[in-house]
Amino acid sequence: MSEHDLKAIVFDAYGTIYDVASVLETCEKHFPGHGKAISDLWRVKQLEYTWLRSLMGKYENFYAVTEAGLRHSCKALSLDLGEEAKRALMENYFRLSPYPEVPAALERMAKNNLLAILSNGTPDMLQKVTEHNGLTPHFHSILSVDELKVFKPTPKVYQLAVDRLGVRAEQIGFVSSNFWDAAGAKACGFYVFWINRFRRPQEELGYAPDQEVFTMDQIADRLDRG
Amino acid sequence: MSEHDLKAIVFDAYGTIYDVASVLETCEKHFPGHGKAISDLWRVKQLEYTWLRSLMGKYENFYAVTEAGLRHSCKALSLDLGEEAKRALMENYFRLSPYPEVPAALERMAKNNLLAILSNGTPDMLQKVTEHNGLTPHFHSILSVDELKVFKPTPKVYQLAVDRLGVRAEQIGFVSSNFWDAAGAKACGFYVFWINRFRRPQEELGYAPDQEVFTMDQIADRLDRG
Repeated sequence: MSEHDLKAIVFDAYGTIYDVASVLETCEKHFPGHGKAISDLWRVKQLEYTWLRSLMGKYENFYAVTEAGLRHSCKALSLDLGEEAKRALMENYFRLSPYPEVPAALERMAKNNLLAILSNGTPDMLQKVTEHNGLTPHFHSILSVDELKVFKPTPKVYQLAVDRLGVRAEQIGFVSSNFWDAAGAKACGFYVFWINRFRRPQEELGYAPDQEVFTMDQIADRLDRG
Repeated sequence: MSEHDLKAIVFDAYGTIYDVASVLETCEKHFPGHGKAISDLWRVKQLEYTWLRSLMGKYENFYAVTEAGLRHSCKALSLDLGEEAKRALMENYFRLSPYPEVPAALERMAKNNLLAILSNGTPDMLQKVTEHNGLTPHFHSILSVDELKVFKPTPKVYQLAVDRLGVRAEQIGFVSSNFWDAAGAKACGFYVFWINRFRRPQEELGYAPDQEVFTMDQIADRLDRG
């Protein structure tokens, strides 16, 4: 198999298409001097809670888990999160910005490939942010873990893409900037591109991506060459 | 139910009985100036890998996961982990120090209670560190997740204590300094003591401990009053 045998490309959303660090500005506006600390800890807790709740068998949707992560982060930093700031910070998730190169890269890939999103986000969160950024027409489907009531990297999440797209795992190119998500997809037999946006070493999880790139347009380049 | 109706007390090991930060000294010896950065990141990665591998259904034992976390931490910090440093750092896990108040607290509790350890560690790691510290006689049993091939906070891990001790979940006092582990035990119906050693706010996981204390002797005090 190579990238030229792929029948569909499936993308992670948060951190891959959408820049979750773009909430930093709103964090800074509401908590001057603490924007970076809040947005960093918030992302850590958001992910931790998805993993822990999945293991505990106590799913709550990504919106609720994201809000819980925000509440904890403010408490841990001794900041008082009022209702107004909470609403403003949570609303960010409906209009996160994509990374700069992403819209053009998706447009190029959509010409010759079936594209889909596979994300921890709720259907509502995913539809709104994708619509807000004018990216909806590029995607054949937007798949949410919400119908399974469990988060990534549980294997049945990746299986959802196989089932819904009707394409075998090894014919699906899976794209994520989150190494652990890339590893989860690789463990399920996908052909995996890891966008290593922050030039970090690979995690030691026993699974390596098929290709490591730094930006999404590099994936579009490689698919074009086919 | 109150703490006076408990028939057994089950303890988490790492972070609760044993101070994982006690590896800092060896880290500092091998990597002067980076001891804290390594030991902090190492603990984060060790836990992340237990959660991720459990979700992926790709268990490797705690020794292997701990070593993987160390390898990644050194790479992430651009430090060259040689075989000798790796061996020295990993050997720490067989002779971690208990928190200062722990040995006396365990001795007091063992007089009137059935005590057990329930840990992510391998049987070998747990037996050696407990023997090294002379704590073995206090425990009726030392239970490892290894026979289940999945890590905390998966419910069947906590069920192992119920099955092996022959005591109902609500009659088991579960003690952990790791909030997420306390939450996992609470979700399974245990009576939970959270040792909040670092004065942190509770995590927002939907489950709160029955009692929050700051050191293990406070638990011994409360049980004594029964």
